[in-house]
Amino acid sequence: MAMEGLSALCTPALVVDLDKVKRNAQRMIERCQKMGVQLRPHMKTHKTLECADIMTAGSRRCIVVSTLAEAFFYAEHGFDDILYAYCLPFDKMERCAALSEKLDLFQVLLDHPDALDQLKKRPLKNGPIAGTEGVELTGVYAHCGNTYTCKGLEQIQAVAQETTSFVLDFMEKLRAAGITCKSSIGSTPSCSHPVKDMAKLDEVHPGNYVFYDVQQSIIGSCCLDDVAVRVLSGVIGHCPHRNQLLIDCGWSGISLDGAGKLSTGYAVIEGHPNLKLLSMTQEHGRVEPISGLLDYSKYPLGSLLTLIPYHSCATAMMHPVYHIHSDGHLLGKWTPTRGW
Amino acid sequence: MAMEGLSALCTPALVVDLDKVKRNAQRMIERCQKMGVQLRPHMKTHKTLECADIMTAGSRRCIVVSTLAEAFFYAEHGFDDILYAYCLPFDKMERCAALSEKLDLFQVLLDHPDALDQLKKRPLKNGPIAGTEGVELTGVYAHCGNTYTCKGLEQIQAVAQETTSFVLDFMEKLRAAGITCKSSIGSTPSCSHPVKDMAKLDEVHPGNYVFYDVQQSIIGSCCLDDVAVRVLSGVIGHCPHRNQLLIDCGWSGISLDGAGKLSTGYAVIEGHPNLKLLSMTQEHGRVEPISGLLDYSKYPLGSLLTLIPYHSCATAMMHPVYHIHSDGHLLGKWTPTRGW
Repeated sequence: MAMEGLSALCTPALVVDLDKVKRNAQRMIERCQKMGVQLRPHMKTHKTLECADIMTAGSRRCIVVSTLAEAFFYAEHGFDDILYAYCLPFDKMERCAALSEKLDLFQVLLDHPDALDQLKKRPLKNGPIAGTEGVELTGVYAHCGNTYTCKGLEQIQAVAQETTSFVLDFMEKLRAAGITCKSSIGSTPSCSHPVKDMAKLDEVHPGNYVFYDVQQSIIGSCCLDDVAVRVLSGVIGHCPHRNQLLIDCGWSGISLDGAGKLSTGYAVIEGHPNLKLLSMTQEHGRVEPISGLLDYSKYPLGSLLTLIPYHSCATAMMHPVYHIHSDGHLLGKWTPTRGW
Repeated sequence: MAMEGLSALCTPALVVDLDKVKRNAQRMIERCQKMGVQLRPHMKTHKTLECADIMTAGSRRCIVVSTLAEAFFYAEHGFDDILYAYCLPFDKMERCAALSEKLDLFQVLLDHPDALDQLKKRPLKNGPIAGTEGVELTGVYAHCGNTYTCKGLEQIQAVAQETTSFVLDFMEKLRAAGITCKSSIGSTPSCSHPVKDMAKLDEVHPGNYVFYDVQQSIIGSCCLDDVAVRVLSGVIGHCPHRNQLLIDCGWSGISLDGAGKLSTGYAVIEGHPNLKLLSMTQEHGRVEPISGLLDYSKYPLGSLLTLIPYHSCATAMMHPVYHIHSDGHLLGKWTPTRGW
């Protein structure tokens, strides 16, 4: 990665490669167009307006969110056709109803008869249709989350096929019972390598693909070069008595996700395959070589290491601002929404 | 915990018991007064103005921070005598110098000759004193972090004694070399149970004690009843095929800190010693009984569980706002600062 502008940032800093974001987004758009399936991108990884614009190709329509805070954030900024993909929370019924009044289309998920009772008591705006008791079934939603245990294309596609077949069979049963509605499945691994039958679905809803991360590269959703995010971290200490470096990225800068998953610790340290991010405190990372003794002259105090996150959703969540660049030239900042 | 006002909150919600915060803070103030040692409370756990006011007994003087963002936040709100307790980061020299101009007293840490060179190039405001090349040694700072591997009073006090003796011996050597300065040690365990010799120090700098957490109760710094923070979480799903509940607190609401440390998983679930927070996704927690079958009638959808965090610093970091209560009656919100 070229570093001209980036080296001026105060660290730890989350940096986003805009070209890779656009490439990842465009590939998913084209993949879905080719299948003839609606793409409803998930916002939970980044939670920013700018990235949502890229993922929806500027339409600001047809998105998924994981929190009601995200739903309000996007609604307030002109987004619409928002699916709140979360087991309908009973403490948020009024806020859901209020949001539905603001939007042309706001959809919620139900997975329990009690939730249906709650929704009947306080229907959304689009609900009241004759004979539906204020609630209308729009579709069937499945996550396909078991792709996250896969390694490689073959396994991903086996799970994608299994989930797709399950959902299509279920849709068939619904049709036999006189119910017609949409089908939607998600997960970045399956949508990065879709199987042919996914073309029979109405919609897919992946999210992480816009950033990708080390986890996705291990699963086989992408290659490491596709990962659009890094955490820049400065060397702040030399600990020759422990054969370690201290860096200024602790768990507050990259999260604790990925513990025990990588031979390189909590991240991949770009360009330094022999370095391991061994452990962290709130604001410190301990880095040691996988083998041999550290040559401290290679890592002077103030020099930078570039961490590729294990799980970009978890890492992005730790940062109040993302620094956007193109080929190392800083372009600006994106500010995510937070909370629930 | 009384729940009248709290049950109206949207979950997951970080709730702070103001009475416990005040009690924890007051006890530390009295402990330090009794020893005749200056208390310099650390802000990193909560990062709020209100809690800083309580920890400084309203003086807004003499605090420690872990990030320069905290230092600016407190400086902008009338706090002074701020110690930035972090290996001096070379990318932040100008910001450090700018901050020192705003404050009566701003101190930084040095632990390497290269850092001294950097500081000489760009001294802080209070630095330029004849013969000091713009840098003045104020004191010696040690963290005493190895108390975190302790269990029980005896072990805590052994580590506290060891650290104190080391620091006092070092001060003696400095004096013999003609250097007089202050001594400061920290850590919530040691300062919760100080040894007699700590009275010979000038200053202590604990922080977590104002909230405490499950980790501190296991170390023996406090009892579980002293812990001032909880995460309220709603039951959002029943999974009888897995003998599990789903709750609306994932790692975005409590952090992944504490993995593998507790028989009850990532938290203690108050009033339900047989429940375990087994695993989490970004917005979901999976709860299962430690033994036996779940009685789902006890956990209807929409009911609340109260999680006591393993590590309150890590949990607080995930929340953009804290809900403050006294005996369950909501009093208001505190907003922490974030970033670096």
